[in-house]
Amino acid sequence: MTETKTTFDFKKLSPEALAEELKNHHFADSIDIINDLDIAKRVTVLSLLPLDYTIELFDKPELGQPAAILELLPVDRSVEILDGMSADAAADVFQEMNEETQRQLYALLKPLTRTELKKLTSYPDHTAGAMMTTEFIAVPANWTVQKTLDHIRDVERTRETVYTSYVIDPKTGALLKAVSLRNLILASPGDQIINVLTRDAPITISPFMHHEDIARLFQRHDLLSVPVIDDSNHVIGIVTVDDVLDAMVNEMSEDAYKFGGMEALDKPYMQINFLGMMKKRGGWLALLFVGEMLTASAMQYFETSLEKAIALTLFIPLIMSSGGNSGSQATSLIIRALALRELALKDWWKVIIREIPAGIFLGLLLGIIGITRIMIWQQLGVYDYGEHWVFIAMTVGTALVGIVTFGSLSGSMLPFILKRLRFDPASASAPLVATLVDVMGIIIYFSVASFILSGILL
Amino acid sequence: MTETKTTFDFKKLSPEALAEELKNHHFADSIDIINDLDIAKRVTVLSLLPLDYTIELFDKPELGQPAAILELLPVDRSVEILDGMSADAAADVFQEMNEETQRQLYALLKPLTRTELKKLTSYPDHTAGAMMTTEFIAVPANWTVQKTLDHIRDVERTRETVYTSYVIDPKTGALLKAVSLRNLILASPGDQIINVLTRDAPITISPFMHHEDIARLFQRHDLLSVPVIDDSNHVIGIVTVDDVLDAMVNEMSEDAYKFGGMEALDKPYMQINFLGMMKKRGGWLALLFVGEMLTASAMQYFETSLEKAIALTLFIPLIMSSGGNSGSQATSLIIRALALRELALKDWWKVIIREIPAGIFLGLLLGIIGITRIMIWQQLGVYDYGEHWVFIAMTVGTALVGIVTFGSLSGSMLPFILKRLRFDPASASAPLVATLVDVMGIIIYFSVASFILSGILL
Repeated sequence: MTETKTTFDFKKLSPEALAEELKNHHFADSIDIINDLDIAKRVTVLSLLPLDYTIELFDKPELGQPAAILELLPVDRSVEILDGMSADAAADVFQEMNEETQRQLYALLKPLTRTELKKLTSYPDHTAGAMMTTEFIAVPANWTVQKTLDHIRDVERTRETVYTSYVIDPKTGALLKAVSLRNLILASPGDQIINVLTRDAPITISPFMHHEDIARLFQRHDLLSVPVIDDSNHVIGIVTVDDVLDAMVNEMSEDAYKFGGMEALDKPYMQINFLGMMKKRGGWLALLFVGEMLTASAMQYFETSLEKAIALTLFIPLIMSSGGNSGSQATSLIIRALALRELALKDWWKVIIREIPAGIFLGLLLGIIGITRIMIWQQLGVYDYGEHWVFIAMTVGTALVGIVTFGSLSGSMLPFILKRLRFDPASASAPLVATLVDVMGIIIYFSVASFILSGILL
Repeated sequence: MTETKTTFDFKKLSPEALAEELKNHHFADSIDIINDLDIAKRVTVLSLLPLDYTIELFDKPELGQPAAILELLPVDRSVEILDGMSADAAADVFQEMNEETQRQLYALLKPLTRTELKKLTSYPDHTAGAMMTTEFIAVPANWTVQKTLDHIRDVERTRETVYTSYVIDPKTGALLKAVSLRNLILASPGDQIINVLTRDAPITISPFMHHEDIARLFQRHDLLSVPVIDDSNHVIGIVTVDDVLDAMVNEMSEDAYKFGGMEALDKPYMQINFLGMMKKRGGWLALLFVGEMLTASAMQYFETSLEKAIALTLFIPLIMSSGGNSGSQATSLIIRALALRELALKDWWKVIIREIPAGIFLGLLLGIIGITRIMIWQQLGVYDYGEHWVFIAMTVGTALVGIVTFGSLSGSMLPFILKRLRFDPASASAPLVATLVDVMGIIIYFSVASFILSGILL
């Protein structure tokens, strides 16, 4: 592939030489090079680059510390950049600046930029409103194809995408249809835009749609962009596929961290500082530890059994981990099924109906392996479980069926419960499931033991 | 949003009425309705729909069992559909058919379709070659803008995307530049296409690039499509952003299942049959169980200590799970960092340098909580750990530092080891890490106990 490999050390170049050099690179590569500089040099280089080029760089979410750079650049330059940026990117950067600079810059921005910033900063994170840009092409229904194409040529530079034009009612401003550039160049120049042939009513979304649902919609309908409309069917912005890709990559990382039992990182692994990392990991780890302490309490409760039958303690880790593993499988299954909308909240009982036989089957599988292992060890003389080894084997086997079933059930229900409580179902982590299942695992194991071994060993 | 809610039961309609009804729906919704029918009715409905419409449905990966449907449709209809489908979708479906039908249909396909099928089915799964389509727009460098636009209008229907035209050397056929439709409509109709203003050399990929890297490239450069080139710089296909979105959603699911400790599902949760599900879960569960059996062996080894100090056994689950949890965190961190290319294989030692202090810090945190808990229980008389309770508390605290550090280290190294062995690093699962750490956890715990409690309790 033809991406630039940054083996050359650009840091050695003077700011002037570097600014000259960057013009030969893809934007994404220039950003990598700039991100490698210290903040003061970044500011110098960015003030030497042509304004257009600088604006393009600020439009990419990958540029490091854009707010800090804008705070350090001369005020008039920062204003020009913000005015020139696409509205969604400008809004993201603006929100990161300190209040002092916000006030100072806001007063100097173009009125249009001010209106857009106000609109875009008012929606919650992870919603269409926060992802959208206000720079789209809208044309009245009575325009001709030719007039629309001329308009696209005029405004092209200031629009995020020109591949869809939104046709609106000239009186009410409401959205009537969406015409792709593909449809447009196929149509006769004299046709009215409202008559251009398109299939389907336009797919539209509300500004409060969550980015996971937006991604699903893009995937389902192979979209490049989608209009965001208000209650009276006015287009207030568009979400484009590049923003959806960015959101999905972030979502993949967040979900992975959460399932691993920690808070999501906001910086790359090698860049986050030690204390920041400890905060992301220590909180959950301590919480799980406190929860897991219940296992010690449960075992204290069964202390007399422990003393009488040491052989039982040998299998505690084995049995507990089997519950945790089956639970972790069930949780990952249901998190995905909920995310892909294969299951809805009301389907929890369908899952229970599937997970009970699944748990019993898997528990029997492990139980048989466990009993076989005890038999072989006993017969070969590897270890002597005592004269009642058959009953110990039966206890282990029976307990496994109970624990794996309990693990599958609670692992599959946890995402439903989180969703019902309006948490993200993806917050259910493998360690959380294991912790929940462990205490119950001990209770099930010793209860089965009391039943089977009562009068024999206990 | 304006997606069709399928509350109406379409299954009750006659095939004829249903075929008529479907024309009013978005393709994605029609597919949902069709997927709900039994296979015989699907075949009838699809044979009643207009050919163009049917082809569009077959072009979407969401249509259920496309290969089975093509096997049941009249041969000439199936051939028309395959000839009409986009080449990448046709290749995917073709590979799923039984050999008998493949042979029968292949002989009747257009020569062009045959060539494309041969080319597209020759690349490994998850690579650009397997994702690409051969239906793109390529024009010689000496054409004018007007001629290119006319050509686009002519061939539009048969191309996956018309938003980028690839300009090739008229003699060698090698790729010279990529011109977007956006650039094209801004240019003067009489200009030579090679002179149309574009920034940047085109970004190209090899047919063997993995789909995760392709997704990263699309995200980095905000691409809508990318050309796949061979060694002599000929464009052999293009990958479009809708295929990248599909691949990412699949990847998210696969990663989630694997991290949960099971094989990836190939069907939605509610559609997979019981035995299929047991195969996906039972294999790993049994393997982990066999691995975890080592904990029983480890505990047998420390049997005398167990008998002498029952109080020690109470903390086994607590200590083991802490190692597993810290390992699971570290694994999810490194899987993501490797996937996002924040870390490369050679960076393993940098991770070790970060994870050792992290493990010690987190271990100390848990150790302090653990010691505090034993002190409080002892002082309040909740439980009596015996006269040597201070030493037991010290054992638990010290062991926790060792185990959490070991967990962080092995959890972070596992993805590196898998990558080095050319497995997917995302195959490292939370249960696998826990199993690896558990045995060592017991050994560390009892070794620390022997050291601290030797001559006191042991």
